[in-house]
Amino acid sequence: MRFDIITCQPELLVSPFAHSIVKRAQDKGLAEIHLHDLRQFAINKHGQIDDYAFGGGAGMVLRPEPIAACIDGLRAERPYDAIIYLTPDGPTFRQAAANRLSLLQNVILLCGHYKGVDERIREEYVTEEISIGDFVLSGGELGAAVVVDAVVRLLPGVLGNEESALSDSFQDNLLAPPVYTRPAEWRGRAVPAILMSGDTPKVEDWRHEQALQRTQQRRPDLLADMPQEAFEEPRKPRRRKKPNA
Amino acid sequence: MRFDIITCQPELLVSPFAHSIVKRAQDKGLAEIHLHDLRQFAINKHGQIDDYAFGGGAGMVLRPEPIAACIDGLRAERPYDAIIYLTPDGPTFRQAAANRLSLLQNVILLCGHYKGVDERIREEYVTEEISIGDFVLSGGELGAAVVVDAVVRLLPGVLGNEESALSDSFQDNLLAPPVYTRPAEWRGRAVPAILMSGDTPKVEDWRHEQALQRTQQRRPDLLADMPQEAFEEPRKPRRRKKPNA
Repeated sequence: MRFDIITCQPELLVSPFAHSIVKRAQDKGLAEIHLHDLRQFAINKHGQIDDYAFGGGAGMVLRPEPIAACIDGLRAERPYDAIIYLTPDGPTFRQAAANRLSLLQNVILLCGHYKGVDERIREEYVTEEISIGDFVLSGGELGAAVVVDAVVRLLPGVLGNEESALSDSFQDNLLAPPVYTRPAEWRGRAVPAILMSGDTPKVEDWRHEQALQRTQQRRPDLLADMPQEAFEEPRKPRRRKKPNA
Repeated sequence: MRFDIITCQPELLVSPFAHSIVKRAQDKGLAEIHLHDLRQFAINKHGQIDDYAFGGGAGMVLRPEPIAACIDGLRAERPYDAIIYLTPDGPTFRQAAANRLSLLQNVILLCGHYKGVDERIREEYVTEEISIGDFVLSGGELGAAVVVDAVVRLLPGVLGNEESALSDSFQDNLLAPPVYTRPAEWRGRAVPAILMSGDTPKVEDWRHEQALQRTQQRRPDLLADMPQEAFEEPRKPRRRKKPNA
């Protein structure tokens, strides 16, 4: 999968893509991430890419021409499945969107900055908009980093153990159950005995019960979409899992 | 305001904090960001900080001792207003939380990785949990970057023009209206005439109408919390704004 990220702050994104799972995916040839500096498409030799908002008000707006030039250049080289604009007024990014995007081949991520991009770019080029949440950031760069991380870890072969992604929060509308590791007792707090029992079906039942309880307490909204049988049976991916304790 | 970020991947966070508004805030002495490498608190000379989950299953869990040692060291130096764990099962981060956090002095952000931290750390130390959204990332690092960016830009003196943050999406439960800049006509698409009229009160009315309409279309859920007068009058912060066109 290939990501082309258009930004006026490419240097901001260097370290998040140079480490951890995103780095590993690139090293394995499973993901390509290309950063494009909008200033290379500036409208004049002063590097101008933005201008005052028509109608007045604080904050600069990214001009349409540099963005158009960058996208046109990319599209001349290959077709794109999606041109995504990161913006707080887009639909909220959720795991289902990450799953869907992970099936695409070539994706452009356009990062706004300051007050955002000229509206006409959204009309002319953008096929999808994404907000990573109901908060305001300095630009779309961290949103792009979040989308890339969430999507890349779903690509087959990226995670060492493919089950790991399936048992994460949200993949089945349940929050993850609590996790414990060594030491078995720490500061007077013991790991729940059931987890040390070696009785895998019982452990899976306990985890399912904990996940359900935690979701009911913290995020009852997630349970509204769930099929009824999920309330009765442990989660299938966990039941099939080979214990490595 | 001071952030202490505890992570097993400090290098991942270098570039997001070394640029843009977060960099400017640090240069002005308005924000301090300290990265703490969990491996410096490893339980042995092999740098071990995690272990298998009790009860089996894929994915490693961060052990309690290194995290405890790091937090204890920090708390010996100064009091902390909040110890925040970034985790997908925490309450969802929204602008109101950013506003609230921007009033604090010293904050610890604890990043999970792999399957997260041992549950006992949450019981023993964590005062608040934050999820940046309903999706799974490789670790809490990007969540920490998002929280820092959203909070730091609210600190007085960080943004060049303080009004800029007030007219962003979410600060008044409305999405921002569309923005336009030069050129006035581009690819046959003209900027709305009202924005070129120079009639500031009319421009403000138009923007309020557009913001309301966009919110009704895209995020009707945001309007549920709004006071009734917001539907009748233009937004106050915008009305007071001096046009710079």
